[in-house]
Amino acid sequence: MERQTIRIPDVIQKKRDKCELEPEEIRFFIREMVKGCIEPVQLGAMLMAWYFNGMSPKELTVLIDSMTHSGETLSWPEEWKTLLVDKHSTGGVGDKVSLVLAPALAACGLKVPMVSGRGLSFTGGTLDKLEAIPGFNVSLSNDQMRECLKDVGCFIAGQTKSLVPADRIMYAARDVTATVDNISLATASIISKKAAEKISALVLDVKVGRAAFFKNLNDARLVAKSLVEAARDQGINTTAVLTTMDTPIGMAIGNSLEVMEVIETLRGKGPPDLVELVKIQGGLLLNLVRRMDVLKGQQLIEETLHNGAALSCFEKMLVHQNVDMQLAADLCSGKYQLAKAKYITPIPSPLSGRVLDIDALACGSVSGALGAARARESDEILPAVGIELLVTVGQSIAQGQPWANLHHEGQSVASDLLIKLKNAVVVGDVPNPTLVSSTRILEIVQ
Amino acid sequence: MERQTIRIPDVIQKKRDKCELEPEEIRFFIREMVKGCIEPVQLGAMLMAWYFNGMSPKELTVLIDSMTHSGETLSWPEEWKTLLVDKHSTGGVGDKVSLVLAPALAACGLKVPMVSGRGLSFTGGTLDKLEAIPGFNVSLSNDQMRECLKDVGCFIAGQTKSLVPADRIMYAARDVTATVDNISLATASIISKKAAEKISALVLDVKVGRAAFFKNLNDARLVAKSLVEAARDQGINTTAVLTTMDTPIGMAIGNSLEVMEVIETLRGKGPPDLVELVKIQGGLLLNLVRRMDVLKGQQLIEETLHNGAALSCFEKMLVHQNVDMQLAADLCSGKYQLAKAKYITPIPSPLSGRVLDIDALACGSVSGALGAARARESDEILPAVGIELLVTVGQSIAQGQPWANLHHEGQSVASDLLIKLKNAVVVGDVPNPTLVSSTRILEIVQ
Repeated sequence: MERQTIRIPDVIQKKRDKCELEPEEIRFFIREMVKGCIEPVQLGAMLMAWYFNGMSPKELTVLIDSMTHSGETLSWPEEWKTLLVDKHSTGGVGDKVSLVLAPALAACGLKVPMVSGRGLSFTGGTLDKLEAIPGFNVSLSNDQMRECLKDVGCFIAGQTKSLVPADRIMYAARDVTATVDNISLATASIISKKAAEKISALVLDVKVGRAAFFKNLNDARLVAKSLVEAARDQGINTTAVLTTMDTPIGMAIGNSLEVMEVIETLRGKGPPDLVELVKIQGGLLLNLVRRMDVLKGQQLIEETLHNGAALSCFEKMLVHQNVDMQLAADLCSGKYQLAKAKYITPIPSPLSGRVLDIDALACGSVSGALGAARARESDEILPAVGIELLVTVGQSIAQGQPWANLHHEGQSVASDLLIKLKNAVVVGDVPNPTLVSSTRILEIVQ
Repeated sequence: MERQTIRIPDVIQKKRDKCELEPEEIRFFIREMVKGCIEPVQLGAMLMAWYFNGMSPKELTVLIDSMTHSGETLSWPEEWKTLLVDKHSTGGVGDKVSLVLAPALAACGLKVPMVSGRGLSFTGGTLDKLEAIPGFNVSLSNDQMRECLKDVGCFIAGQTKSLVPADRIMYAARDVTATVDNISLATASIISKKAAEKISALVLDVKVGRAAFFKNLNDARLVAKSLVEAARDQGINTTAVLTTMDTPIGMAIGNSLEVMEVIETLRGKGPPDLVELVKIQGGLLLNLVRRMDVLKGQQLIEETLHNGAALSCFEKMLVHQNVDMQLAADLCSGKYQLAKAKYITPIPSPLSGRVLDIDALACGSVSGALGAARARESDEILPAVGIELLVTVGQSIAQGQPWANLHHEGQSVASDLLIKLKNAVVVGDVPNPTLVSSTRILEIVQ
């Protein structure tokens, strides 16, 4: 009876006792986990031990590498090597930046293999938004992905089963074991997926504020640094931008409503805060990939929004991802509008004055509760549900004038949700400097 | 869609964040766990969170109570109430105290419903020892248990499926998640099983030393205090005794060899250290139950070893637990010897001088590796395997004179095991005061 060289309980104990794990121990753990040879009870204990005792930069690098290679990775023609880019956002209410940025970058000649997720908690994910478009297919084969990058320059698809299976297992486990909010584990999850895309540059949008995962700048900065360093260790040239997430991005919250706002933005008529976020992230990526001045990069991105180049890429992407050609054309030209919800309820301003605040957290949770997002994996998304903002922070409003339209599918809205939404707006005299700031950008982390 | 009042991830998070759990949260966790409604990954995370953040005395009390009542508990006639006692040892090499103490206490008129475990790691458990006796049945029904206590005064049986199922689940999980060595979890495991026996007094033998779970007195003292307090909180009058575990107890290690030594002890011819341990634990229990002076209690116990009363209870217990009546009588009268191992190899002393040390850890691990104990649950025990000591610490020995006989079933013994055993003895001039001490008793914790 020969003793196994590495025993899982010993690996757990080592981490429990704050020792640094050997690379081979981490690789063994991940390999056995993906083979299903680790008891779930051991995975739970290991995640909690990591939660408490963290990991060294070296351990994190090895963990990310073994997660990345726990399944297939994407592969691209050699000549695209320097063109492959992606972005990641830690998530915000009304955050539809990916849908605009991917085609804008494609229009600049970059290749954007965007493997995205579905939203849990209160925001619909990027895939949920795109699925508001009839026919849109998020499940692409590797061949379809390559075809899309070749012909269009971008795709936005879901994670395939064979891509980073270690992360799927660990993420599901973290979700039920109170080990989601840990910098090392979150970094490993995010960066392993990006490394499996085989991109050469990455921009990270780390949100800060009451509707963000990180409530204060320091926490967000720590995470941004961890992500940037980890991505660089995997050979991905990376910059992070810290941006505010107190009020919703743009004027639309909810899947169909956000897609319509995306198309407006691709037609050069986007809300300034959304355009700013697209420009800065695009500019940073162009800077990373082409060593172009960031401002110059921003201008280039903006041009693609005004000259129809980004819109054209978006339209082509829709067609490559199974949307009917005519429908895609009509949607992009503004002739076709996505179906609206059955009921639209205006939410009146309680007072006359200036709009001092619109609480993104309240807006997100109300629209999520009405069907714009999933509370659990099995929930169905109602694409047309959401909130259409009619004013921005800083504007004047009269008492009784609606500041938002609530789009809902059920005739009556639960009174606690209506109250929550009504309380999401603050109207008064003394503006909050953070909320009326003309920029969402707080800091660049390189 | 109504929200469950308690969510498991929230309970885990609360413990992770060092908050005190509400009684209802602990009860819910244990109840759901026993129903199989908790994902194993969540149990692993919870155990590790408990490992790191411990629990308050109040939480521990509630945990023990919910574990105790996670299945059936034993029940006895009202008139036995004040007579029901048990003992627990944290485990040592050559520790056969239970086998002598249970019939000795029965001979004093007490009722001893001893629900015992099997040994893992290097020592055979009490049940493994008893199973060295042909026919001995460790699986008693509740009726059989009651019958045994009525007629004999004691039984030694295995845990039934319905008794403290929460502990079975948690113990198996702790075993593979590096969460065994935690005072609170260990206390909950031990005391919940004793509380389910519905005893009124308990004595704990907490071992200290190189072959014990606790290597130093301070750790052992902390555990003893935790156990005593937790047991009292469950209404069990409890005393702990801290005893040394550096050298083996008695002269026999291994299941059949230990049973033979037990019978010698019950015939009044036991080795002094084993007799001392039986007497002190018996004396402490008689003190708890009858308010009898401890010294007086020890005398009473000793009498039962000399007047045949304890031996008679042991013999009756064997018969009640399915051993052939004639075999039991012959075994107890010394006419019948348990089968010996195929091979007996004498281990010679390397030098002439005084025996300064016999390392219990080495003896235990060699005899365990040869089949006296299980490395894993599925391993088979070889009852006759073990070590028979021929000298005690402090005695003189000549070079080449055997200090032990190794009993083994395979013709050859792996050389690393032989070397380990040879190195277990230290012969020289300068005695170690701890090892030659005439008592194993370090401290009483009340």
